[in-house]
Amino acid sequence: MVRDALIAHAHGRTTVPPPLHLQFPDTDGDCHVKAGHVTTAPDFAVKIATGFYHNPAAGLPTNHGLLCVISARTGHVRAILDDQGLLTAWRTAAAGALITHAMARLDAATLAVFGTGEQARLQVEWLARLRPISTVFVHGRSQDKARSLCEEFNAHGYRAQPVSAEEAAGADMVVTTTPATAPVLQAAHVREGAHVTGIGTDMPHKNELPPELFGRAALIATDDHHQCLDHGDFGHAVRAGTTADTSDTPIGLLLESPVARPDGAITAADLTGVGALDAAVASAVLRELAR
Amino acid sequence: MVRDALIAHAHGRTTVPPPLHLQFPDTDGDCHVKAGHVTTAPDFAVKIATGFYHNPAAGLPTNHGLLCVISARTGHVRAILDDQGLLTAWRTAAAGALITHAMARLDAATLAVFGTGEQARLQVEWLARLRPISTVFVHGRSQDKARSLCEEFNAHGYRAQPVSAEEAAGADMVVTTTPATAPVLQAAHVREGAHVTGIGTDMPHKNELPPELFGRAALIATDDHHQCLDHGDFGHAVRAGTTADTSDTPIGLLLESPVARPDGAITAADLTGVGALDAAVASAVLRELAR
Repeated sequence: MVRDALIAHAHGRTTVPPPLHLQFPDTDGDCHVKAGHVTTAPDFAVKIATGFYHNPAAGLPTNHGLLCVISARTGHVRAILDDQGLLTAWRTAAAGALITHAMARLDAATLAVFGTGEQARLQVEWLARLRPISTVFVHGRSQDKARSLCEEFNAHGYRAQPVSAEEAAGADMVVTTTPATAPVLQAAHVREGAHVTGIGTDMPHKNELPPELFGRAALIATDDHHQCLDHGDFGHAVRAGTTADTSDTPIGLLLESPVARPDGAITAADLTGVGALDAAVASAVLRELAR
Repeated sequence: MVRDALIAHAHGRTTVPPPLHLQFPDTDGDCHVKAGHVTTAPDFAVKIATGFYHNPAAGLPTNHGLLCVISARTGHVRAILDDQGLLTAWRTAAAGALITHAMARLDAATLAVFGTGEQARLQVEWLARLRPISTVFVHGRSQDKARSLCEEFNAHGYRAQPVSAEEAAGADMVVTTTPATAPVLQAAHVREGAHVTGIGTDMPHKNELPPELFGRAALIATDDHHQCLDHGDFGHAVRAGTTADTSDTPIGLLLESPVARPDGAITAADLTGVGALDAAVASAVLRELAR
């Protein structure tokens, strides 16, 4: 579903309006409403997501929200999914694994993740379903969390080890899954022939991948050109002058047919999250529920 | 609640982001998502509203949606109200009745409504709770509907009669509640000392009140300056050059204290619907439910 939705999005067969945004300075909270529709799909989705960053101090989870599935034929609300963010995590993991697999060399075998949260875990597990992975490197700000994630990976049969940022940047495939506001790796540490996917940069103040990486990349993919330019790592690189604002290719086009990549080339993908994927995943869930 | 929310809005104590909008050309449908928060309130609201205009041909109602009430302290979803548009109708009726009562002469006694739908009925019933009404004039494109609404009014103890647009425009208080795309009355037919409230113009292509009316008005009120300029009757008047884009007063300020109006002056109010009212009304419903 995510692959099909990304391909539809690349061909302009989706509707993704600008999101609605509310801020609550007193409680350090925000609310985003995103909507999306894959043009030929019977349903569309409206997703309400809140983040209230004082919640953990009160023992409450930070994020809440719901996913509303609405018929694109009658406007009727078909379902309200109290998914607690699970479907967003899944569509993000699917998009990341798909594009990393599509752009990486066929013989790429080592995978590094930056970050130790849910997306770090999912990116490894889901990419491992698409290709064999020889070694998983984990880099986190917290050594404890990196070690504990590696233990989890090892328990599931991966060969995982915590490493420095420099070592992680040297893997065949690198995936960044952090909320960082400054680059988490140096472009010079990325090897020729490697592929890097950035997952975490979804707001203007965030930044995971250094502009120089985009300067070195022979192929750059974005999940949505305008979003990535506005608030992705690609936009930071364009504003830093290391790449042109026309240098990117829609991810969906690279998922349609095998990617031709020159020997020794570095490739990079920037994901900001596309509302049409929420609609696609929610529709898939409804179909399964209706079976 | 609506009065308090309009006053808060006039003083900038609300957050009302630009709405999110999706269109479905194949099925002549649209989806609007509006959000609003009265700054000091414990909850905010996100309202999803769809209109699919081929539905009646299939025996289905045109409008659907829901109102989601979310804690402004933790971001938790407190309630999803399947109100079928009732709360929007109520907050619109309340805002209209409040401002008509506040701006009309104390001795204004005849009331005309343009339109024969739910808002026409509510505007009469709710204004009648605020002041005595001697006669209700109803003007509708359909004579049958106008007659049938008058019968309903008469059964409830009002003295109502269907009239021409010219007669309706001559009432002490005039309220327009139509989806018209061209003015429903002539400014020349509005008498000195009268007040006119426009309820129906909520999109750029709609227009109920003629620009000349705003030219004649000594006092102009808007529920939201930017919205009314962008897609209200006030905006049409400003673009036609009959009034200045600074000539309006926030409705909330006129609800705080008695309105000083010169003898013989015409006054006008333009309502486009403020998202903060949805939050206020939804909070009131939750409080009642929790009793």
